[in-house]
Amino acid sequence: MNNDFFGVSANQTSQAKLQFCSRFEVIPGKSPEEKMERMKQWGFEGVELPGSAYREPERYRKLCSDIGLIPTITGSVSASGALVSDDESRRQEGIDALKQGIDASAAIGQHGVLYVPCFNNQTKLPNQEIRAILLDQMPALAQYAKDAGQVIVFEPLNRGESSFLNRVSDGAAICRDIGVDSMKVMADFYHMSIEETNYMGAILSAGKQYLDHVHLAGGVTEPRRSIPGQNRSRYVEGFRGLKYIGYDRFCSFECSVQGDRLVEIPKALDFLRREWELAVV
Amino acid sequence: MNNDFFGVSANQTSQAKLQFCSRFEVIPGKSPEEKMERMKQWGFEGVELPGSAYREPERYRKLCSDIGLIPTITGSVSASGALVSDDESRRQEGIDALKQGIDASAAIGQHGVLYVPCFNNQTKLPNQEIRAILLDQMPALAQYAKDAGQVIVFEPLNRGESSFLNRVSDGAAICRDIGVDSMKVMADFYHMSIEETNYMGAILSAGKQYLDHVHLAGGVTEPRRSIPGQNRSRYVEGFRGLKYIGYDRFCSFECSVQGDRLVEIPKALDFLRREWELAVV
Repeated sequence: MNNDFFGVSANQTSQAKLQFCSRFEVIPGKSPEEKMERMKQWGFEGVELPGSAYREPERYRKLCSDIGLIPTITGSVSASGALVSDDESRRQEGIDALKQGIDASAAIGQHGVLYVPCFNNQTKLPNQEIRAILLDQMPALAQYAKDAGQVIVFEPLNRGESSFLNRVSDGAAICRDIGVDSMKVMADFYHMSIEETNYMGAILSAGKQYLDHVHLAGGVTEPRRSIPGQNRSRYVEGFRGLKYIGYDRFCSFECSVQGDRLVEIPKALDFLRREWELAVV
Repeated sequence: MNNDFFGVSANQTSQAKLQFCSRFEVIPGKSPEEKMERMKQWGFEGVELPGSAYREPERYRKLCSDIGLIPTITGSVSASGALVSDDESRRQEGIDALKQGIDASAAIGQHGVLYVPCFNNQTKLPNQEIRAILLDQMPALAQYAKDAGQVIVFEPLNRGESSFLNRVSDGAAICRDIGVDSMKVMADFYHMSIEETNYMGAILSAGKQYLDHVHLAGGVTEPRRSIPGQNRSRYVEGFRGLKYIGYDRFCSFECSVQGDRLVEIPKALDFLRREWELAVV
């Protein structure tokens, strides 16, 4: 438990920063260069590179350095849930895939990899057994990541996508039990809108110790999973949580966009900066 | 989601109260009268009556009224998990047991009943199916409770006792999905010490909307599950959560006590009042 700060405020707002990032496909542009130049102009600090960047690590490492964007994290490398498969003979494939992802991420010089243990129908095992496999396998994999200067970040999903790992607190508790400090959890506003009862509570459950990456997208009201500001989803309550824990990692767009992206993306950044200001803790 | 209070602080400390309560067996005394008189003298505001009170509702109603203690909640009435049994023919038994508990609680004039859907080995169903049964059955039962002026309160347990419903946020999400406002969740500091990564996060996840009852006990360090102050468990982080949501329900002793209860119980109350003061949000 994070039982620090007894007798003084645990509110770490003064350490918190709102730093933007985006998945590559959200940004308009004919080439990686054009997308990344645009992001830089709009005020993004980081970028979620596409999986294809793993095939050209030197190119993307140089691009990020030249343009001045921090490569954050690339999507999950789970080999279709092989690590937690009910077919034990497949598990080594899952271990290998995760290690390859970590190596590729390190070659680009990014922060780490997102990891979804399994989507629905990828394993027949009940949740308790999936969790037990993770506690068995992940300490060595997290150490492998740590030795490579990388983090592995669990992504909790809504139950429509996976019935394992639905809440941020679930992921944080698994990180704690794994016990290697390169094991992290992220918070996705879309999935949280379905699974959490309180965004701030979810974010505090992870805390600065475990929270490492945020995905920004509206909830299920239309337009579903939209870029912030395009549906009625608000970010104030979640941003209160980020402020309270002194979050200083990235908030990344993983969302749909209606209309002209050249107009809508800067508008969303402005909307989010106002939500951040409204987030009085 | 509790998306209120945009642009103003969501911190509701000014509405929060620390009100003490205890399970009956924690309090020394040869008779219910002696126990309750003692609780009143020590500054308890409420009492968790024993299950046996259900057999003498008039006696306990009058005792509470005469002595000036509020009867809060009595332990779970789950008929060994019958409602979520893999044997469908047992489910009616679970429904009947819960209704009888609600009726008995109402006859005493107390606030409601605690409900543990199942302990380990009481059902063979996986968690997703247990949850689906609850969403099917509990709306009518929660309405039954509401009509009787009662609440039904889920108690999340650590996985050693139940592998279903381990975190406060799990219970809060089920309450939200049941959608009847007499359906609540409680927070037990012992179980939280095992299952939660952050007490404040857990409590915010329930929020004032769903949190209704708290059990006080130390975590797993020796003496295990002890009365507050007798092991190294602290309460500040959890109390920050209670203050932040403006919690004004009860905090109840469910714990072991080493040594002379006549000395140790008042000492624990003093310890907790200091922890409350230290809980700067």
